[in-house]
Amino acid sequence: MEQKIPYKIYLTEDEIPTAWYNLRADMKKKPAPLLNPATLKPLTAEELSEVFCSDLVAQELDEDTAYVAIPEEIRNFYKMYRPSPVVRAYCLEKKLGTPAEIYYKFEGNNTSGSHKLNSAIAQAYYAKKQGLIGVTTETGAGQWGTALSMASAYFGLDCKVYMVKCSYEQKPFRREVMRTYGATVTPSPSNTTEIGRKILAEFPGTTGSLGCAISEAVEVATHTEGYRYVLGSVLNQVLLHQSVIGLEAKTALDKYGVKPDIIIGCAGGGSNLGGLIAPFMGEKLRGEADYRIIAVEPASCPSFTRGKYAFDFCDTGKICPLAKMYTLGSGFIPSASHAGGLRFHGMCPTLSELYDQKMMEAVAVEQTSVFEAAEMFARVEGILPAPESSHAIRVAIDEALKCKETGEKKKILFGLTGTGYFDLVAYEKYNNGEMGDYIPSDEDIKKGWATMPKVDL
Amino acid sequence: MEQKIPYKIYLTEDEIPTAWYNLRADMKKKPAPLLNPATLKPLTAEELSEVFCSDLVAQELDEDTAYVAIPEEIRNFYKMYRPSPVVRAYCLEKKLGTPAEIYYKFEGNNTSGSHKLNSAIAQAYYAKKQGLIGVTTETGAGQWGTALSMASAYFGLDCKVYMVKCSYEQKPFRREVMRTYGATVTPSPSNTTEIGRKILAEFPGTTGSLGCAISEAVEVATHTEGYRYVLGSVLNQVLLHQSVIGLEAKTALDKYGVKPDIIIGCAGGGSNLGGLIAPFMGEKLRGEADYRIIAVEPASCPSFTRGKYAFDFCDTGKICPLAKMYTLGSGFIPSASHAGGLRFHGMCPTLSELYDQKMMEAVAVEQTSVFEAAEMFARVEGILPAPESSHAIRVAIDEALKCKETGEKKKILFGLTGTGYFDLVAYEKYNNGEMGDYIPSDEDIKKGWATMPKVDL
Repeated sequence: MEQKIPYKIYLTEDEIPTAWYNLRADMKKKPAPLLNPATLKPLTAEELSEVFCSDLVAQELDEDTAYVAIPEEIRNFYKMYRPSPVVRAYCLEKKLGTPAEIYYKFEGNNTSGSHKLNSAIAQAYYAKKQGLIGVTTETGAGQWGTALSMASAYFGLDCKVYMVKCSYEQKPFRREVMRTYGATVTPSPSNTTEIGRKILAEFPGTTGSLGCAISEAVEVATHTEGYRYVLGSVLNQVLLHQSVIGLEAKTALDKYGVKPDIIIGCAGGGSNLGGLIAPFMGEKLRGEADYRIIAVEPASCPSFTRGKYAFDFCDTGKICPLAKMYTLGSGFIPSASHAGGLRFHGMCPTLSELYDQKMMEAVAVEQTSVFEAAEMFARVEGILPAPESSHAIRVAIDEALKCKETGEKKKILFGLTGTGYFDLVAYEKYNNGEMGDYIPSDEDIKKGWATMPKVDL
Repeated sequence: MEQKIPYKIYLTEDEIPTAWYNLRADMKKKPAPLLNPATLKPLTAEELSEVFCSDLVAQELDEDTAYVAIPEEIRNFYKMYRPSPVVRAYCLEKKLGTPAEIYYKFEGNNTSGSHKLNSAIAQAYYAKKQGLIGVTTETGAGQWGTALSMASAYFGLDCKVYMVKCSYEQKPFRREVMRTYGATVTPSPSNTTEIGRKILAEFPGTTGSLGCAISEAVEVATHTEGYRYVLGSVLNQVLLHQSVIGLEAKTALDKYGVKPDIIIGCAGGGSNLGGLIAPFMGEKLRGEADYRIIAVEPASCPSFTRGKYAFDFCDTGKICPLAKMYTLGSGFIPSASHAGGLRFHGMCPTLSELYDQKMMEAVAVEQTSVFEAAEMFARVEGILPAPESSHAIRVAIDEALKCKETGEKKKILFGLTGTGYFDLVAYEKYNNGEMGDYIPSDEDIKKGWATMPKVDL
């Protein structure tokens, strides 16, 4: 019965999932709803529809439907870069001398360089379907902005990206990819919005922040006819779209009778981890199977491992809804780190609830050990990983080394979310031995907690 | 019988070719041999072995063996990123409104970002097999250097890359990828070699040239025990290794009964074009089938379309062998262009001979029209192409538009050699409307011709 497992397990295009899986449908205790920051009441579909497209609002609020059909137009786009392979890391196993089997789902083989495209194309599709002219968003490191630019170009939507000013200046290449796809990229804060002008007047030399860019993007979306705001992580709709990662991974592994013992993903806002684990967690929730699931976060921004499970603001500007999540406080300032995609102070509510239910574990890892793992992986597996993804690599290697000690032949699956082609300033620091580790003190953590809403919810 | 053709035709790992195809075996009139620049006599295996690995010398000189077995170790490495897909460009066809079918073989899904890895891994393997300590090479734009760094890391070989100084400074990201893979990257000219020191003394502020970097890499290889020099294009051995591109493409198309009418590839030194067309040209040479084959070169460096077919030096330093090829003269200075990989003054001898036999056509295209094609392609097909590859895209689009006029349903195959993630300075220029076209005057061409050897060969 046993087949030789290839280096890369590719599905056929017909095997691309026809429906996304909504993890919440199988949760007995559901994640808490988003609250209106003014009224502290759960946000209604009507309120959400002022900011988001209607179909996406419906997906956001639907916690009962387990499978949501993927529209044909989105599946056709998926066919350009999906199914993405599950790779058996034979070379890494050999390098480590481990009896463990290591697999990774590789989401980096598209121009946006990460899994973000899976949700960007869905959000662009629903915006187009609603007859909108365009979408607005913010971007920090630039992966989400790039993905949304690609998706918008495909559907002929206008795309306005507010890019944190320091990234706009330090990552000109990301900016140019977005422009090549026809997006307007504006350094934030800018004088194109009221909030931007206010911030510029107050802090003339500011290099911006993600919180400020979110505020500008939302302002433009809500004040411009035919526009809506879209977001690349944290939300339920994003987790829904990203379930395509886990569904494909499970189908691929099932083909070869591989049942992973451990599933590992990096976690910033939760878009990748939530997508990767979706069908496995579903089985676990339904009591059909058991898996050890590990979220990996940077020690510099340890939402799960050192945060509180409470209602908090999603943005530093405190204009976005309140979410119940593991959070360090919206005022927590993560120390400098090269994994820009993992610097969110909170965590998506669905994963937060599952963590609270002890359905998954979390571990925080330090930056230099992450780059050590990234370098080893690049040299033996041939892929230069993104710093974010390398957090998962670090823990996969650690688990494989434990197997080496115990002799256990565990099967490890991790998510390789993207490539590091736009992160070479970070690699340069590592290559030059100039990279440090930045771990917040207990004092820093307390300062963050102090910025959380005082109301008892 | 007719099957729906998927967006991406993937072969299985078992379908990766087990042998490379040596085009020369089917040529009745063979390409001219390389000549020793001192004696003007064909180079012997012994002479070549001072510079290159012995197995590679044997491949270089063997013009009779049609199929050369690919060693298992190389096939295992290929499995990490191959088979590469043949993509049906459905979205591009739709955008153009053409009845033509457009296919492309995509070689960009590996960290080196191009097809160069196919030969780098072979050359590193034979170096390791010979018991060498390391290899040296030069790199301009950096694709070849990156590929060789990856290949060397895999086999545990030392890798010394001489990188043209201006590229070293302007493309720090390429440099850091190579360093991450453990290569030593030295800006050329450097004080690590005799020739480097001499040039630095003579021209203190020079930013280097490919010719100079070649000279340094060859000097180090020939003066250091356990080292050899390797090269990423022009040579017969490189065309042999790159035949994996065409062999896979043909197998994939055969599966769906697709016989291309037109095959298009960009051509600098010829490594991609020679690889892509190999099995098709083989059929054409043996009279089994006919294909229209088009080489695309930049109007700024038009070796085929405005060069002479003659013996010439391969490097500006005139220390390398003489090759019979279409050439603009080793002293021809191509005007600034963003397709660094196509700026070679000559063309590989095998393709030159085939062009001379009228087995293929050539067309020169201008830079701005190339970027126009690149942008359109990126937006509809989702892949940001390298400027080099975009030369082929330009002509594929032109041919598809001709079909639109005539109503012909031609089948077009082109080679998409790589991605443009490290070429965003060029895209920025294009996005800003600051890109120009640079076409050498007849005067410039004559100046180049004047640098060719005066001897009658």
